[in-house]
Amino acid sequence: MAVEYDGTDFHGFAAQPEQRTVQGALTDALERLLGCSVKVTGAGRTDAGVHAKGQVVDFATEASIPAKRVARAINRLLPIDLKAIKAWDVAEDFSARFSAKSRIYRYRLYTGRRASVWKSRYACWFPYEVDAAMAQTAAEMLVGEKDFRAFCADWSERENFVREIYRVEVRRKGSFIDLELEGTAFMKGMVRLIAGAVFLVGRGSRSLDWMGELVANSRRASLMMPPQGLCLMKVRY
Amino acid sequence: MAVEYDGTDFHGFAAQPEQRTVQGALTDALERLLGCSVKVTGAGRTDAGVHAKGQVVDFATEASIPAKRVARAINRLLPIDLKAIKAWDVAEDFSARFSAKSRIYRYRLYTGRRASVWKSRYACWFPYEVDAAMAQTAAEMLVGEKDFRAFCADWSERENFVREIYRVEVRRKGSFIDLELEGTAFMKGMVRLIAGAVFLVGRGSRSLDWMGELVANSRRASLMMPPQGLCLMKVRY
Repeated sequence: MAVEYDGTDFHGFAAQPEQRTVQGALTDALERLLGCSVKVTGAGRTDAGVHAKGQVVDFATEASIPAKRVARAINRLLPIDLKAIKAWDVAEDFSARFSAKSRIYRYRLYTGRRASVWKSRYACWFPYEVDAAMAQTAAEMLVGEKDFRAFCADWSERENFVREIYRVEVRRKGSFIDLELEGTAFMKGMVRLIAGAVFLVGRGSRSLDWMGELVANSRRASLMMPPQGLCLMKVRY
Repeated sequence: MAVEYDGTDFHGFAAQPEQRTVQGALTDALERLLGCSVKVTGAGRTDAGVHAKGQVVDFATEASIPAKRVARAINRLLPIDLKAIKAWDVAEDFSARFSAKSRIYRYRLYTGRRASVWKSRYACWFPYEVDAAMAQTAAEMLVGEKDFRAFCADWSERENFVREIYRVEVRRKGSFIDLELEGTAFMKGMVRLIAGAVFLVGRGSRSLDWMGELVANSRRASLMMPPQGLCLMKVRY
């Protein structure tokens, strides 16, 4: 099932006791709809405050409701900031998480002079000049299969820092600047640390040489952009 | 000072003990900025969940900060869902509330087939056919100086139900349908009760004769549209 959410009022995707989470809210609603216990797994464990336009979750059920009716039925039970887009039948060995070929994330800056209630909710307010071409050059240094430990926020219990980034794109759209990344999978904080580095170069505060040191892991990224600018756009299978 | 807010997480404009309100948040931030006690008055006491793009508030201070710097300074102290747009000096007898010549409110429907996280936050999801011309005809019956008691949600402690509506406009914009009203002032629940009646006629569920009975106060409006579709757009002085 594909779902979208405004992450502002969620403590992230992953269920936690006593917290309002996406996984928790989906599980509650599905259990009410289907009348049985349900285990919901997501393609990406987005952090608190991060949005999604194309998160994908899987769950197994023996309930007889046809897949194409699930989205509409579940939406009656879901809060205003979390909605199902579409549900479909999948093979029993399908996993929203492990069958994913790639994830597409977008990090959005809002560069208007004044903080805006409407725009700042889904973007990071960044009222500075950004050279989009320079940011694109910096971002392209990340493309390929690499050890991304310099861009990992949590090294605990992790041994493998190798991921593959397929594609990066920096686009200006009016007062917004978007960094879109497509890759196999992203570690905790990775997209926001990448966005921080790319936009520091785009702003002229850091050089391409400095970016090269991050890519070579001789330096660690330290500017983690805030969550409201990040959105999980799509998961490909 | 003109301010904008996303009303979702506020218990309305008017300060209440132990509640997060627009007036309370503005007062706190202004008192921190100006270093003195401040009394904030608004042009419209919007209900819980109602948004504003052009609310106006007044306050008096002897602090020496120039008016044109206040908006930017206060925005650093305000939460992401409440921002100042502009502040300016006014005569001592100016009142955001009593000097207002008119208020412009917009009630927005989102008529898409599927509830949307992004659109439903600032509109009422209303997945039905609406005849905008018929809605406009119904709305025009409200123009003029009239006794609007049929559209007042709270009759307690109120003796005068006469208000003047200057202008009504129903507009379709893609999947949105907007009802814009300009009038002297609006009573509690008035715009949402008007929107309920106008859209019932637009949907074909009620007739223009029925609307006439409301306008003549021989019947009372009962469908109060939900707050998220309502926005205080502008106050004229």
